[in-house]
Amino acid sequence: MSADLEMAGDVMPEAPSSVGGADTVLPEGLSVRVRVPASSANLGPGFDCLGIALGVYDELTVETTASGIQIDAVGEGAADIPRDERHLVARAVRRGLEYGGASARGLALRCVNAIPHSRGLGSSAAAAVSGFAAASGLLAAAGVRAPFTDAELVQLAGEFEGHPDNAAASVLGGAVVTWTDSPLEANPDGVVATGDVYLARRLEVHPDIRATVFVPETESSTSHTRGLLPDSVPRTDAVFNLSRSALTVVALTTAPECLVDATVDRLHQPYRAPSMPQTAELVAALRKRGYAAMVSGAGPSVLILGALPVTDDVVALAHGIGFATWPVDVAQGVEISW
Amino acid sequence: MSADLEMAGDVMPEAPSSVGGADTVLPEGLSVRVRVPASSANLGPGFDCLGIALGVYDELTVETTASGIQIDAVGEGAADIPRDERHLVARAVRRGLEYGGASARGLALRCVNAIPHSRGLGSSAAAAVSGFAAASGLLAAAGVRAPFTDAELVQLAGEFEGHPDNAAASVLGGAVVTWTDSPLEANPDGVVATGDVYLARRLEVHPDIRATVFVPETESSTSHTRGLLPDSVPRTDAVFNLSRSALTVVALTTAPECLVDATVDRLHQPYRAPSMPQTAELVAALRKRGYAAMVSGAGPSVLILGALPVTDDVVALAHGIGFATWPVDVAQGVEISW
Repeated sequence: MSADLEMAGDVMPEAPSSVGGADTVLPEGLSVRVRVPASSANLGPGFDCLGIALGVYDELTVETTASGIQIDAVGEGAADIPRDERHLVARAVRRGLEYGGASARGLALRCVNAIPHSRGLGSSAAAAVSGFAAASGLLAAAGVRAPFTDAELVQLAGEFEGHPDNAAASVLGGAVVTWTDSPLEANPDGVVATGDVYLARRLEVHPDIRATVFVPETESSTSHTRGLLPDSVPRTDAVFNLSRSALTVVALTTAPECLVDATVDRLHQPYRAPSMPQTAELVAALRKRGYAAMVSGAGPSVLILGALPVTDDVVALAHGIGFATWPVDVAQGVEISW
Repeated sequence: MSADLEMAGDVMPEAPSSVGGADTVLPEGLSVRVRVPASSANLGPGFDCLGIALGVYDELTVETTASGIQIDAVGEGAADIPRDERHLVARAVRRGLEYGGASARGLALRCVNAIPHSRGLGSSAAAAVSGFAAASGLLAAAGVRAPFTDAELVQLAGEFEGHPDNAAASVLGGAVVTWTDSPLEANPDGVVATGDVYLARRLEVHPDIRATVFVPETESSTSHTRGLLPDSVPRTDAVFNLSRSALTVVALTTAPECLVDATVDRLHQPYRAPSMPQTAELVAALRKRGYAAMVSGAGPSVLILGALPVTDDVVALAHGIGFATWPVDVAQGVEISW
């Protein structure tokens, strides 16, 4: 999978031309391997639009079989996930094959998961991306069609899982700006599309910027925390975040020294803080020490970005509040091999 | 004046150390010349935070004299501006000298103005910048202190005139991201400052991006049009603009092909459109033709940015709605010579 600067745009998830047509049944014995990174979304002021890929990976192997579905999962979440057609990755593989005009009689999945679930690190978006990436590899291995473009993966995973900012980070790697075109906006000539179009642009993260995530033992529900956000916001707060989200792009790419100033937020973190007091406490403590700290996604994990080294004191501080400290790389995008 | 990438930060407008002290009276016969570009602020989604310097220039010469104030002004606005201490540029020169710990017995100003007034092209911010730049040159010529830094010019002009986004574009050149730190945010250790701190960062505009402004004969009052904006906005609109303002930074610097998608706005242009129907009509007509068109500042001028050539048809279209078409360069920042 290319991790080049590429615009994930102008591609609607419509049925592509394929050599096999809509009824192609993939042969048994095809195999594909996928490695997909975690991600943080909602970077500071960039609610629903700024994300970054983090070097914690889920690995997936998918083989076509004669019938049924076999799921072998180890690692994060293994105890809790369904082992049948309801499995998120399996559903994404099926949906991806369908989009590609094909199907498989049976599938065997092996998941080795390192991305913790329900911690604000994009595990479900990564799962969706891995499933579509696997479908892409199977379709290509069978000669049904070329692998999905990055734009297709963002669109497919975004509409399947609902977090295109996380999905785009896992697909493209680096940091990403994502945005949504309504069908009308995407098609000014009046062409009617069936749903939102998710677009993304990769940013090359400045090499001085290191990432550290602080991961708590407790879980959080995104749908719950999203419900804490008000339907309207003060215009002054919106304008505040506008300037900081623009600055965050500058800081991530060319001006790491601006990250602390850039990552202040007034549109999501303050509203969610009461539901995650330890997270809010850790963000405040880290920012007081000069780190560009922010909630990762909808929390409860915390992310810091920047050149300032994380000291033992900080690790101890985080531990005292109930967080483990994980230094992570800014990751490249999903890798597919077949 | 340096137009390098420079962060206009961390400089509060406090009295600097100077060789002359607070009572230095500048000698007669000092002379400084200043050339300052126009600007567009509120670029698309970037209300109050994204600006760009445009190659239409006001030129200013200031000399120290024995007494009084002489103002010689030609060009835009010459018929309407006061010729005494109330003159905006003269006031900025006086304030700049005061900030630098000096004063002049008398001043003679010659203004050659090409930036039209009250059209959304930053004429008053440019006037303020020119005045402070002239003060900077006079102070340096007299050996009172080093020239003001870009950060000082942004702060001084921003607090004097009230549009730091325009002022930053005129000071730094290129495109700019500006943001405001409240005294508390700027001084986390509790140091009390007297007012907002205006900060700015220059963006290097992609060389494929050309600018064209469409200037109407009618004028508009910023304070009036600002009153049309609501105190609260839908969160969905705020988030919409967040993603687009982040994308506008990407588009301006590395991805001109994203400019049309990036420059959609929901936070200021729709509210002001009823008060400027011709402006709204021109923006809509240009966007329909594939141009990244937006209101310049608070209007009524219109700006387009991008690689798409402006055709004779477009010039005729604009003329039909009452707008003159001005191709302009993306400008460098203010120049001071003494």
